[in-house]
Amino acid sequence: MCELNAYLSAGEKEDLYLESVDIIRPENGGVYMRSLFGEERFFQGRIKEIQAIKRKILLEPICPPDL
Amino acid sequence: MCELNAYLSAGEKEDLYLESVDIIRPENGGVYMRSLFGEERFFQGRIKEIQAIKRKILLEPICPPDL
Repeated sequence: MCELNAYLSAGEKEDLYLESVDIIRPENGGVYMRSLFGEERFFQGRIKEIQAIKRKILLEPICPPDL
Repeated sequence: MCELNAYLSAGEKEDLYLESVDIIRPENGGVYMRSLFGEERFFQGRIKEIQAIKRKILLEPICPPDL
């Protein structure tokens, strides 16, 4: 099985956000994800990178621009 | 191995765009992809959906808005 794990990425740090992700859909300024087990999450941010071989989705929040 | 295959998605149609994708990175208004074999592509568009279990990346071009 090739499900992916989603992590919140900040600098060098990666915190697990959702395991066993099957569906990933960027929408409405965020990222909808659904796991193998039917768990659904909506992340307010964007996909930074997906590393398929490492089975990682790296997510980052959308920061307001510096004013 | 859990590499993904990228398809151009239009309606019901899916055309293979790049096989064995390892790295996917949304950037500069498009999607950068790199395959297991080091092949690099930059797609002018966006990720519509990723289906990990089916090992599919569905891409769609960015259409100019109707004027």
